[in-house]
Amino acid sequence: MPSPVLSRRDLDFLLYDWLDIESLTARDRFAEHSRETFDAVLDLSADIATKHFATHNKKGDAQEPRIGEDGRVEIIPEVKDALDLFCKAGLLAGGFDEEHGGMQLPVAVQRASMAWFQAANAGTSAYPFLTAANANLLVTHGSDEQIETFVPPMLEGRFFGTMCLSEPQAGSSLADITTRAVPAADGTYRLTGTKMWISGGDHELTENIVHLVLAKIPGGPDGVKGISLFIVPKFLVEADGTLGERNDVALVGLNHKMGNRGTTNTLLNFGEGVHTPGGEAGAVGYLLGEPHKGLSYMFHMMNEARIGVGFLATSLGYAGYLQSLDYARTRTQGRPLGAKDPASPQVPLVEHADVRRMLLAQKSYVEGALALGLYCSKLVDVQRTAESDDERTRAGLLLDLLTPIAKSWPSQWCLEANSLAIQVLGGYGYTREFDVEQFYRDNRLNPIHEGTHGIQGLDLLGRKVIMQGGAALALLGEAVGETIARATQAGGDAAAYAQQLGAAVARVAETTATLWSTGDPAVALANSSVYLEAVGHVVVAWMWLEQLLAVGDREGDFFDGKRAAARYFFRFELPRTGPQFDLLASLDRTTLDVSPSVL
Amino acid sequence: MPSPVLSRRDLDFLLYDWLDIESLTARDRFAEHSRETFDAVLDLSADIATKHFATHNKKGDAQEPRIGEDGRVEIIPEVKDALDLFCKAGLLAGGFDEEHGGMQLPVAVQRASMAWFQAANAGTSAYPFLTAANANLLVTHGSDEQIETFVPPMLEGRFFGTMCLSEPQAGSSLADITTRAVPAADGTYRLTGTKMWISGGDHELTENIVHLVLAKIPGGPDGVKGISLFIVPKFLVEADGTLGERNDVALVGLNHKMGNRGTTNTLLNFGEGVHTPGGEAGAVGYLLGEPHKGLSYMFHMMNEARIGVGFLATSLGYAGYLQSLDYARTRTQGRPLGAKDPASPQVPLVEHADVRRMLLAQKSYVEGALALGLYCSKLVDVQRTAESDDERTRAGLLLDLLTPIAKSWPSQWCLEANSLAIQVLGGYGYTREFDVEQFYRDNRLNPIHEGTHGIQGLDLLGRKVIMQGGAALALLGEAVGETIARATQAGGDAAAYAQQLGAAVARVAETTATLWSTGDPAVALANSSVYLEAVGHVVVAWMWLEQLLAVGDREGDFFDGKRAAARYFFRFELPRTGPQFDLLASLDRTTLDVSPSVL
Repeated sequence: MPSPVLSRRDLDFLLYDWLDIESLTARDRFAEHSRETFDAVLDLSADIATKHFATHNKKGDAQEPRIGEDGRVEIIPEVKDALDLFCKAGLLAGGFDEEHGGMQLPVAVQRASMAWFQAANAGTSAYPFLTAANANLLVTHGSDEQIETFVPPMLEGRFFGTMCLSEPQAGSSLADITTRAVPAADGTYRLTGTKMWISGGDHELTENIVHLVLAKIPGGPDGVKGISLFIVPKFLVEADGTLGERNDVALVGLNHKMGNRGTTNTLLNFGEGVHTPGGEAGAVGYLLGEPHKGLSYMFHMMNEARIGVGFLATSLGYAGYLQSLDYARTRTQGRPLGAKDPASPQVPLVEHADVRRMLLAQKSYVEGALALGLYCSKLVDVQRTAESDDERTRAGLLLDLLTPIAKSWPSQWCLEANSLAIQVLGGYGYTREFDVEQFYRDNRLNPIHEGTHGIQGLDLLGRKVIMQGGAALALLGEAVGETIARATQAGGDAAAYAQQLGAAVARVAETTATLWSTGDPAVALANSSVYLEAVGHVVVAWMWLEQLLAVGDREGDFFDGKRAAARYFFRFELPRTGPQFDLLASLDRTTLDVSPSVL
Repeated sequence: MPSPVLSRRDLDFLLYDWLDIESLTARDRFAEHSRETFDAVLDLSADIATKHFATHNKKGDAQEPRIGEDGRVEIIPEVKDALDLFCKAGLLAGGFDEEHGGMQLPVAVQRASMAWFQAANAGTSAYPFLTAANANLLVTHGSDEQIETFVPPMLEGRFFGTMCLSEPQAGSSLADITTRAVPAADGTYRLTGTKMWISGGDHELTENIVHLVLAKIPGGPDGVKGISLFIVPKFLVEADGTLGERNDVALVGLNHKMGNRGTTNTLLNFGEGVHTPGGEAGAVGYLLGEPHKGLSYMFHMMNEARIGVGFLATSLGYAGYLQSLDYARTRTQGRPLGAKDPASPQVPLVEHADVRRMLLAQKSYVEGALALGLYCSKLVDVQRTAESDDERTRAGLLLDLLTPIAKSWPSQWCLEANSLAIQVLGGYGYTREFDVEQFYRDNRLNPIHEGTHGIQGLDLLGRKVIMQGGAALALLGEAVGETIARATQAGGDAAAYAQQLGAAVARVAETTATLWSTGDPAVALANSSVYLEAVGHVVVAWMWLEQLLAVGDREGDFFDGKRAAARYFFRFELPRTGPQFDLLASLDRTTLDVSPSVL
């Protein structure tokens, strides 16, 4: 039997014992739900993910999508079969309102459901992941007609969605996009331009594809303030919902990636004249919301996508951890230190301390990251449904602050977990006969897309910790302080860790103040990636202390495992931040001062 | 024009300015050489590597070796063409004695020559790399007849060689091999067994393949003390040097790896009865040296191979650094912080501090690793050719100590360099249209083969630092102390770094003593990987201080680059060791005490 890809036991602990997700059912939005309905969704997700997604993960990697002779994208048939099942089960619509055909699940439950699919098959799960994000943006900013036209078919899985942001010359720098949207006589727009890195940009998995495209309306402001957002369907949709003419969106080519091969990644041309609906040049687009506000709409979506990327990284890390754990328990190799008799039987790998170190490290990364992802997801639920304005505002602020960390930390450390999983398997782990090398390749994408690691660092230090006079950072301090107070009262290891965490949180505050004390953003931000990584470790240490408190004095292997991983994190990981804070506090100018010519 | 894969300027600096390799020409062994002959070898290497190895690196990855319908291994033709050129140029024999047809080059020059090929094409360069190691072992331990029969055709490139150590059930634990070698009437042996992970184990690149195989002679001692080493050619060789019967060595299958795909990696069966030379069951093998000493012979070779793995990791890191540097200088993206005008032109990536951080980190890793590799190579030369016994002994001791670091440090940090190279290129770096993702995949092998990272840690802490009463560690302290004294005298940055390095070296000594103070190897070795990594960073800091002293007060971009990378290493990297030493000094038992059942 293959290793499971995720732990239901851990999800139950995090969702119910720790985050008390069940309490959300007291709120109007979730009143129809109960632990039973949540459990049913999680059971169903585990079942479909294991039986229909994990089973073609290797095949989807080995036989990546390609352009056939007819110009259509060919994808192994298992992908469509799995996605049809997924959509029929209503899982794509899990988090959406009932009025749109959704289940109105708490985001925390919906994310946990999705994590099963991300762990089982990163490539295949990307299609509904993107589609849900796309539909969510339509629901939030679209007109009634736009919602009615596009959202139900998306939630039913008949249309999939994409996000078209980057262009060949504009990746991190969205201000530099050149795709143009010219108003047409009928109130729609005609788009021309080239979009790069478009996941799910073309395929035959669904009847239609709904592209959300950033473009500039001529005459608008320069830079990011002149960017608008458009709905550009692959096929126009008639008033009765049937498909009309082919829109002028042309597949130029597929990108061939190191990993994440199961997801088509495309270069698309809009308005190159291959198809000309209505005879007018350009792809037909419908303005979403107001002109020139496209980037802010997209950022709303992107913040959710960033947490989703964190979950993807976490899920891949988790799958690798479980697979390497399984291997370490069954594969025998070598003998304990000091065993003198070479004729004695070999012992399982897990009997070696260094292998346990690699497993504990993985465990601390993936379970810490999962806790952070679910914590942020609950913040979304609180932000949406808490009774008081104040509580909603606070949840939103804390979420804003944590988002770059929830994206970047798992992308860094759950990739490292995958590397350790390979190492546990040794030579076998390096072969394509096992899964861990694919997890590692798949996961390497996560520090790049939806805002690179460096962009997250600039977001955290350059925006999030200083916004509203530092209100979000102060909130984080309060929240961590509350945990520390409980841990101190609990005594024992928790109290010792609380002291360590308190010192680290104090350093976050001091360091932030020092960095901004010069008044020179260049100096403050010179090492923003280091800052991101240090604060990330502090935040995950907090997640571990929270988990330890939720464990309490309960007995059993599961709880002892949480204790061991917490101990590992506080002894091996949190101390890494010391030199990082020292460096930041010194206002080091190495990266600022070095001349490009000497590199 | 593609980016160069290695820097001749840096090699010149390290070999001539710093290590004064030219001084070796005063010794008998190298008396025929001069800077001119060294330069000629390096020029030739750069030329062939760039024009004939780098050019098929991608193709060899995309079209990995496969077994054809006739059961033969098919490899793209460019590999044989490149290797024929390489061998005809005499480069395979570079380090060998003239009496065997070699150039009798210093090891430091020979390694630098080889690094060009490793950087250009890890897959193709592995064949001669293994062959040279194999031939070297034959020269050292073989009989005159064995040397005469096998070595000249290997150095001419007509035969290639392999090392057959691992078996499916015995990877790190060589004590558990089960391949048997039974004496035959004619004084030869008949081998039966299965060998796993055999690089170059089968192919049609050469007329013959010379396997060096570890096997047990029945009746010998259990465990590693009962292992002998055998020469097992694919084709038997007649007295006149012509090829005779096919030996009973059968290709069972090829391993399909994440990277390093250009090198066939095989599962081989010995003595399965497919071919039966002389009608006797088993593959014909010739005992090399004495019975039961096979592992010690192999370890002599393996120590050289470990330094070679370090060079491979370094070379791949170097190639990625240069490619990402080139990209960062030409690709424009975004604007400087605070640039208000969105209509202003985009700037090259290298103008962003975070990109410079990623480039500086790579530079400090790959140039630091190259310095370490060449330093160790010179130690081999000193060990072989120094006038006094004492000097030779000291060089050998220091080399023994540094070997696990020279293998593991580049394998860890030059892999990290490749990850940073991908990050600099962003989405493009994640595609197979660029080279950096292949470097990253190729490099991930290096912490696994020739002794895993964990095995290196056990070797360093469990053997090397305590051997001969800690003599090697004391020698390291002396050598670093001598550098510190010079740096202190030099003043300025060098003096400041010297102080930092002095404190770190003191912690190495203290920590080592503390770890062994309990008398319990399990406690001492519980975190030997952490120890390996901490000592590795200290050693590379030493390499950077050495380079800085060699730079002196010379002016120019190259020297300023060395200064900047040294500064980066002392500010960003060496401080990482603080928490590692703290953990080690606490005799942390987390990895020892955790029960496998709770993971």
